[in-house]
Parts: sequence; structure tokens; C-alpha cells
Amino acid sequence: MIENVLSSPKSSWISGNGPNHNIVLSSRIRLARNLDKYPMNAFQTENSGQEVLDRIEKAVDEFKLQGPEQLYIYRMHELSAMQRQILFEKHLISREHMEDNPNKALLLNQDESVSIMVNEEDHLRIQVLLPGLQLEKAWEEADRIDDLLESQLEYAFHEEKGYLTCCPTNVGTGLRASVMIHLPGLVATKQASRIFSTLGQLGLVVRGLYGEGTEATGYLFQISNQVTLGLKETEIIQNLTAVTKQIIDKEEEVRKLLLNETPLQTKDRVGRAYGILKNAAIINSQEALSLLSEIRLGADLGILKTDVSTEKLNEIMIAAQPGFLQNNAGKHMDTLERDAARAELFNKML
Amino acid sequence: MIENVLSSPKSSWISGNGPNHNIVLSSRIRLARNLDKYPMNAFQTENSGQEVLDRIEKAVDEFKLQGPEQLYIYRMHELSAMQRQILFEKHLISREHMEDNPNKALLLNQDESVSIMVNEEDHLRIQVLLPGLQLEKAWEEADRIDDLLESQLEYAFHEEKGYLTCCPTNVGTGLRASVMIHLPGLVATKQASRIFSTLGQLGLVVRGLYGEGTEATGYLFQISNQVTLGLKETEIIQNLTAVTKQIIDKEEEVRKLLLNETPLQTKDRVGRAYGILKNAAIINSQEALSLLSEIRLGADLGILKTDVSTEKLNEIMIAAQPGFLQNNAGKHMDTLERDAARAELFNKML
Repeated sequence: MIENVLSSPKSSWISGNGPNHNIVLSSRIRLARNLDKYPMNAFQTENSGQEVLDRIEKAVDEFKLQGPEQLYIYRMHELSAMQRQILFEKHLISREHMEDNPNKALLLNQDESVSIMVNEEDHLRIQVLLPGLQLEKAWEEADRIDDLLESQLEYAFHEEKGYLTCCPTNVGTGLRASVMIHLPGLVATKQASRIFSTLGQLGLVVRGLYGEGTEATGYLFQISNQVTLGLKETEIIQNLTAVTKQIIDKEEEVRKLLLNETPLQTKDRVGRAYGILKNAAIINSQEALSLLSEIRLGADLGILKTDVSTEKLNEIMIAAQPGFLQNNAGKHMDTLERDAARAELFNKML
Repeated sequence: MIENVLSSPKSSWISGNGPNHNIVLSSRIRLARNLDKYPMNAFQTENSGQEVLDRIEKAVDEFKLQGPEQLYIYRMHELSAMQRQILFEKHLISREHMEDNPNKALLLNQDESVSIMVNEEDHLRIQVLLPGLQLEKAWEEADRIDDLLESQLEYAFHEEKGYLTCCPTNVGTGLRASVMIHLPGLVATKQASRIFSTLGQLGLVVRGLYGEGTEATGYLFQISNQVTLGLKETEIIQNLTAVTKQIIDKEEEVRKLLLNETPLQTKDRVGRAYGILKNAAIINSQEALSLLSEIRLGADLGILKTDVSTEKLNEIMIAAQPGFLQNNAGKHMDTLERDAARAELFNKML
């Protein structure tokens, strides 16, 4: 099972089958939960961490999910650094969870839509990742898994505050809802930053591709709720969904304008990106993301030379990352080797 | 006849059949001559200019060259501005000769290897332009034409000074020998400027693609003799040929190094250039020359995806210029239209 996870860039969200997949790559729900009577991870000893992991593993065994729903467990210290890197590149674990630590583990279902980090910042981080804009569906799925876990485990819960978490910003619902959104039109017309600055007032925050503290690259942004306390889960999700839909409308409008008002310039940026990805011999990851963004735009506008599906674009984006490239080559590679392997990948796959 | 000249970018030198054509695009000999008893052009009246033109036309009629050698006459004021522009882009006339002036004319043979400007700076500017490095052959041809003209015309000649010319820098032999040379290797390894700075001491000078005062673009340079007085024609030609051969050796050595020591980087620059020329929708003339240079390098090193002959590269280079693009489209085009037409040309022809 782990071999499949590591050898293929495909996860459920990659398929690109979700609503508005031309603009929203994926929707993610993450629930932070902690077990009652065990110290929070910030105060954890090695033993208490081990007990938490054992307790959770036992609980998962109890509710015996079968078939595609079955949750497989991967202990971080049993994986190589490269394998952990790949899980990170697939958005299945966080950067912090890549640590070689016997208490850290990942529970993963078959299509990789459900991933549960054990002993990340909180004892449990339940994640559901789906293609396109479908936060509600992701929430329902996360809620179901959460209920199952809660049927076996006692959560740290406070009558007034709600779910208790390691970091106070997660207290309450423990819910983080986010969308990965592609906005080349709004960036090109310099409207993105103005829109983003208003999101704060709506309790939302914009981040880069790999979460907190990372730079947005290639016109890809992650929008999520800032506030977890004082709102119901469904309110948080409805709020983010409504705002995302407004941004989608705006982006679609601008894309049409780009094609109708400046067709040559738009075809030019898309054509150049395609030409370079198809013919360069060295491409670094930053450039790859930028150029892929142009291709994504071109595919949506129907001005790309060849037909490239959203699924293929998502797949290439993940496959072009350092861990994947090295795993594919079956060896450690230095920067130049990776940049060359990445270029080869694009030359072939586009 | 003029239709062929204007509609096709091909001239004799375009064929790329000459020696060292992978590095030397063309060899040019130019002889400056003036008729005795007529005022130099700087002091010319409209009538005296007309008489000079009549006298030369009559002389050319006299020696009745037939077949491919026949010289056709084109009067500048009978051509449109666009047609004159095209003659300039084909290196058949100088920028100064593009003027709408009844006294200015061009004599041109069938394969366009011989072009004689009448009433440019001097009464006669005899040019022979051949592919590759063959200055000697070009000189023989120019000398033969010069003898023919001299059999009918009395040249302004001074026993000690030699041929008298309008500008003192041409006095003596009146000979300017030049090669158009492509040096991407020496430029990339930053050796070009060092080499160029030593050429002055050898009585040679380096210029851009379209002669005096123009910038070198796309690693293309024009090297010619500075001194016309005090040396025999054959000495001037042997000197320039010898120096050019040394530069060719150096450039070939560097190209091999580029391919062997930094193969990825070399394939990358060539691949990107190809990808852009093949897929962009807007390309300005400066960028076109730079990218074509990379393609030329790639073709020589055998690392280009498709087979492109030197002839084709020369042809595209000329066809991509403003006059040609507009003549082809049969209409005046603004900058954006030209840049789009140029991109289309590359998309198709490569």
C-alpha cells in the first residue's frame, strides 16, 4: 500500500473532478482533536506520546473500516526522509510532521482523501481533501470520521470553549476549512491583493501553496478561516464557500476579458510557458509552478496547443516535486539533477 | 524581376553553402569609386547627380552582361518606402541609400550576389556578397566588375593616394572587406570583448548587424578592415581572412566545451529558444535575433529537436524583418501586428 502512495502522485483530489475545478484545485477540512487525560503534545513525554498513538491505533482497529475506507497506519520513523517528503508533497502531512519521531504517525485511506496525523501539534489532525469546491462534502466526511473516533476515544472538550487544542487559535470547533485556488487573472490585473486584503475582515486568511508561512507561487493561493471559536462548523464552511464563489466569479470574468481584450498577449504568455516546459532542459520548482499556472490558464481558456486535463496538470504539479523526482529516479539527486529530471518530466508529460 | 527580389528573402549568401557557414554567415567586398570630372556627391547638384547616373547606366549597357550576370537597375524614387526597406533588410543597399531620391539607384544581378549602389556616399559602391568565408572569391568577382566598369568609365584616381572617395577613410583601395560572424560561444564565455579589443591593433573594426553605428544583436557581428590606404587589396583580404579563421577556431573550441562541460545548460538555452519561437504569439525583432542565434548554435551542435539548415535560418532571419513581414501581408502593420506576424512566421517555419 505505501508503495502505491509513494510511487503515484495521484490522490483523490488530483482527479480534478470536483465543481469549479478550473479555478479551485481542492477543498480541505481539518479537525484538531486531543485526547482527554493525556498531556497536550507541547507537554508530552516520549511515553505519553506513545500511549496516545497506541490508544488511537486501537480505536481505529475497533471500528474496523473495510475496503476503500480502511485506514492504514504509517509510522513516521519507519519511513525514510524521502518517503516523508513525498507525503508532505502530496499534502497528506504537514512540514512539522515530517520529523523522524516514533510517536508521529499517519492514518490514510485508500484514495488518500482521508489522512489523519497522529501527534502533530494536536493528538489528532483529521483531514479530508477533495477535488474542486466541495467544502460541505469534505466536512460531512470529516464529521463522520470524527464521530467514529469519538465513539472510541474521549476527547478533551470544554463546555464553553468547545474542543481544546494545543494552540489557542484552534480552540472551539478545531476546524480549519480551506480551498486551494488558482487566480492568474486576478493577479495579472493586479486585483488579487486588493481582494485578499478584504478577506481579513471576513475572518479569512490567504496563504501560499504549502500552508502557513509559505509564499504563494504560480498564482496558487490557499484561503482558509481564521476563526474557529464562536461560530458553528456549518457557518464557517458556508462563509468560506460563499466568499470563494464570489472570487471564482470575479476570476472567470477577468479570464474572459484577458481572452477577448488582449488575445495576443494572453496566447503569448500561455504559448511561451508551454514552449519552455516542453523544451527546456533545466527547470527549478519555482519556475515550474509559475509556468504550470500559465498552462492551467491556457487549458481553461482553450488556447493551449494540446489537450491537457486538470487531472494531468495536478498530477504533474505533484510529480515535479523534489521527493517524487528522487523517488522516481531511485536515488538522491542534487539540485541540478532534480532540475534536469523535472524538465524531462515536463518535456514528456505535456 | 523586382517582384522576386522583394517577395523572397533569398539572396545568394542565404544559401549557406560557403565554407565555415556554421560560423560565418557571409563575406562582403565593397569598392568605393567615383567618376572623374563629376563633383563628389557631397558637392553634387541635382543635375550632376543625374548625369552620373546616366553615365553609369550607359556604361553598364555597354558591356552587355547576359544571363545570370545581367545587371538590372532599380531607381530608388520609383520604389515604395516598403520596397526600399526590403532591399535594406536584404543587405543590398545601405540605410542612407533608402532615400526617395531620383539620382539614387541600385544595379543588381540575378542571384543578388552583386549589388552596385549609384550615388550613395560615392558615385559607385560595388558590392559582392557571398555565403560563408570566401573573401577572396568575393574580391575576384568585385575586381572583375570593377574592371568592366572602368573599361567604360574614367575613375577619379590619384597616383599616390589611389582611388579618391568622398570620405577620406575610404581613399586608397576604396575597399571594405567584411565578414558577418556568429559568436555565441565566445560571448557566453565572455571572451568576445577581449578578442574584439585586440582587433583594433590589427586594423580591423567590429560592428553590429547593419553596419556602422548599429548594435550587435544575437551574437552576430560584422568584422571589417578599418584601413584602406597603404595596403594592397589582397593584403587587406588575407589579413581579415587569417584573423577570421583564428576567431572561428576559438569559437569552435568553445562550442565543443559548452557541449561537453555544460551539456544540460547548453541544451537548456537552445531548447528554451526553440520552445519560445515555436509557441510565442508576440516576438519583437530584437528577441527574434537573440533566439535565432540560440537555434543556430543548437543546429550546429546537433542538439536541436528538428533539423534546420543554415539556409533556412538565414531565410527566416531576413523574412522576420519589418519590411518583409509587411510586404508579405500586403499591408502596413503597427508594431504589435508585426510582432504577431513575426511570431506566426517562426511558429510555422521552425
